[in-house]
Amino acid sequence: MNTYSSRLLEQCVNELAKLPGIGRKTALRLSLHLLQQDPANVESLSHALLEMKNNIRHCRICGNLSDAEVCQICDNYKRDKDIVCVVSDIRDILAIEKTAQYNGVYHVLNGIISPIDGVGPGDLNIESLVERVAKGEIREIIFALSSTIEGDTTSFYLFRKIQDHNVSVSTIARGISVGDELEYADEVTLGRSLLNRTPYQSEVK
Amino acid sequence: MNTYSSRLLEQCVNELAKLPGIGRKTALRLSLHLLQQDPANVESLSHALLEMKNNIRHCRICGNLSDAEVCQICDNYKRDKDIVCVVSDIRDILAIEKTAQYNGVYHVLNGIISPIDGVGPGDLNIESLVERVAKGEIREIIFALSSTIEGDTTSFYLFRKIQDHNVSVSTIARGISVGDELEYADEVTLGRSLLNRTPYQSEVK
Repeated sequence: MNTYSSRLLEQCVNELAKLPGIGRKTALRLSLHLLQQDPANVESLSHALLEMKNNIRHCRICGNLSDAEVCQICDNYKRDKDIVCVVSDIRDILAIEKTAQYNGVYHVLNGIISPIDGVGPGDLNIESLVERVAKGEIREIIFALSSTIEGDTTSFYLFRKIQDHNVSVSTIARGISVGDELEYADEVTLGRSLLNRTPYQSEVK
Repeated sequence: MNTYSSRLLEQCVNELAKLPGIGRKTALRLSLHLLQQDPANVESLSHALLEMKNNIRHCRICGNLSDAEVCQICDNYKRDKDIVCVVSDIRDILAIEKTAQYNGVYHVLNGIISPIDGVGPGDLNIESLVERVAKGEIREIIFALSSTIEGDTTSFYLFRKIQDHNVSVSTIARGISVGDELEYADEVTLGRSLLNRTPYQSEVK
């Protein structure tokens, strides 16, 4: 006999416990919570999961998650289509969108070159970026990749692929985080922030 | 435009974030995790939720969650049907089953008498317990309710309801938790554990 006295409950707990960060105790708590809810609520949760999984697509242009063939960002006439920010993951798009500082479009690589993890350039969404650049519609490319060896390798690889085209390439600034104490910054970050110093501008206008 | 660039993703995040203890960040992490899974996995999660919600029942005898009309515990011929442990919630059954110290059956009240929360005896699964006792098949009743005023009130109410029947009534022992230091125990618990002292038995046999 199983501990739960109900196979249906146990099945539900098993399925929920497969999710990352959800153990069997939390899964049980969630299941019992759902049992107390209106059937319509459970149905809409179950439906939303299936709908998302079955119908979500990757944008034909940038690779972002999208409901249609072209995502809302690529499809937005207010965005600058000639500036492309290259990110490794769609979560990075969410992070950049939250800053409200960027009005261009994106290109999602879906990963980063990492020989240790067996990820080479061929596994990433790079060819379509080169194609976008080759079409000549892009004026500027911004690399917004992690500040790691893998990120730098990927940026360098991409730069080599597109340097022959007439496009200006930049990477997001590395430096001391806003609000950070200088004495606690690591030496590499501090060194880079000295090398990449920017002309002083008073922020009070 | 929403932040998620996909209505399907947003819907899924919204539904998951309704669950207790799951915020929007966790919901997004879970959604992106599910997007990377095999479609069959998402389908079985979605299916398990619906199946549980639509098909789980309460045992006709004890009120425990059950797949059939009678739950696996009431249906198990190896369990003593003449000892009934009264609990307020099915989670308490799971906790008691884990101890592997109890071989009787249960009765789930589905709550506890609590005038402050507007829960009276009529809202609980009490009548069916009285009926079970009236049938004369029960030899012993064990109250396993919380050690709170509400729990004690409920135990007292139940006792008054069944005292005229020929059934022995007990309540689980209150006292110092195993492993607890005496000096940190609260005075009520310590007082009760003195009043309810038990004959000394060497636990080494």
